[in-house]
Amino acid sequence: MEGIIKAVMEAIKGAGLVEVEVSARHIHLSEEDLEFLFGKGASLTPKRELSQIGQFLAEERVNLIGPKGRKNRIAILGPVRKDTQVELSKSDCVDLGVKAPVRESGDVEGSGVISIEGPCGILDIKQGVIVAHRHIHVPKDVAKKLGLKDKDRRNVQIYSDRPVIFNDVIIRISDTARFRMHIDFDEANAAAVSGFTLGQIVLQKQLSN
Amino acid sequence: MEGIIKAVMEAIKGAGLVEVEVSARHIHLSEEDLEFLFGKGASLTPKRELSQIGQFLAEERVNLIGPKGRKNRIAILGPVRKDTQVELSKSDCVDLGVKAPVRESGDVEGSGVISIEGPCGILDIKQGVIVAHRHIHVPKDVAKKLGLKDKDRRNVQIYSDRPVIFNDVIIRISDTARFRMHIDFDEANAAAVSGFTLGQIVLQKQLSN
Repeated sequence: MEGIIKAVMEAIKGAGLVEVEVSARHIHLSEEDLEFLFGKGASLTPKRELSQIGQFLAEERVNLIGPKGRKNRIAILGPVRKDTQVELSKSDCVDLGVKAPVRESGDVEGSGVISIEGPCGILDIKQGVIVAHRHIHVPKDVAKKLGLKDKDRRNVQIYSDRPVIFNDVIIRISDTARFRMHIDFDEANAAAVSGFTLGQIVLQKQLSN
Repeated sequence: MEGIIKAVMEAIKGAGLVEVEVSARHIHLSEEDLEFLFGKGASLTPKRELSQIGQFLAEERVNLIGPKGRKNRIAILGPVRKDTQVELSKSDCVDLGVKAPVRESGDVEGSGVISIEGPCGILDIKQGVIVAHRHIHVPKDVAKKLGLKDKDRRNVQIYSDRPVIFNDVIIRISDTARFRMHIDFDEANAAAVSGFTLGQIVLQKQLSN
């Protein structure tokens, strides 16, 4: 039985089919900002592991305050990072009255401003708010099999009741990646993604058929 | 000058390029429901014409109340219709705690329930809430030129900073249609549609190239 499941999973990967995960609004904190918001020596308490190895949802939460509104109990994803980063959908940005560019994670230079409220105070960040660029985490062996290179941009067909082909999906390859596509809630709603959903990377060999 | 503009517009249409319009949440009212909400003998006051001939944004507004929230000052589009219909995005549905199917306009049988608040009372509708299925209004002459039939489903490439191909876009042909693609705010956000944006209907002759 286990052998069959493994064979099916391999076949699915070989066809460029990838599980689609929807990222809700969340925040990553730097060590310094974590201590400002939660107190000297504070650390994040893992509540649940995420699909990407080493990443976790923390027990701790913060509130976000923008010129036009606030959103409470925002998820913090650990571990801490070099730079604080707030990932919102464009709908969230409209609600909060915040401007944010569509960016790859980690590329926060000159991105949006917002206020973050924690139990120990309010932090006004001067940059760090982004709308995450849709992307696929690809393990090295799968990338090799599919002929994908790091930073490739591909089209991905979403199989759902409201089907969409997302263009310009960034391929991110690493040894430790779990094979997953990440989109935000606007994209999920536009494609009616809910529950287990598959996307299919449009491969060169399919295009040349 | 006018001749040149006309020639350009014709060439754009000939390539299957269509202006994309974003529909914000709104409501259509039946005569009966209009009178319930605004009083006996009430009528809608046109404030602004819409792109489709005869359709208008009314001065009057209503509030929407769902189990999880409310949204105030919702646009009413006139003229009155046979059936009251509330068109929301999936994001709106989440905020309000309302369930609604993706449907074509007018197909309200067994669709979502909500409460509508007007100056004269609150109306609990037993059906009528839908998420509008993306579609393109096509004038008959353009349809003929492009080889499109009424109720065809086509793929449409959106040209934007966050490009997407929407599958399963319904073609609606009529004599009086102005050539426009209509999507909701989730779809607009997923594709970063703002300001003047063009979509391109993928035509059979392109596919067979």
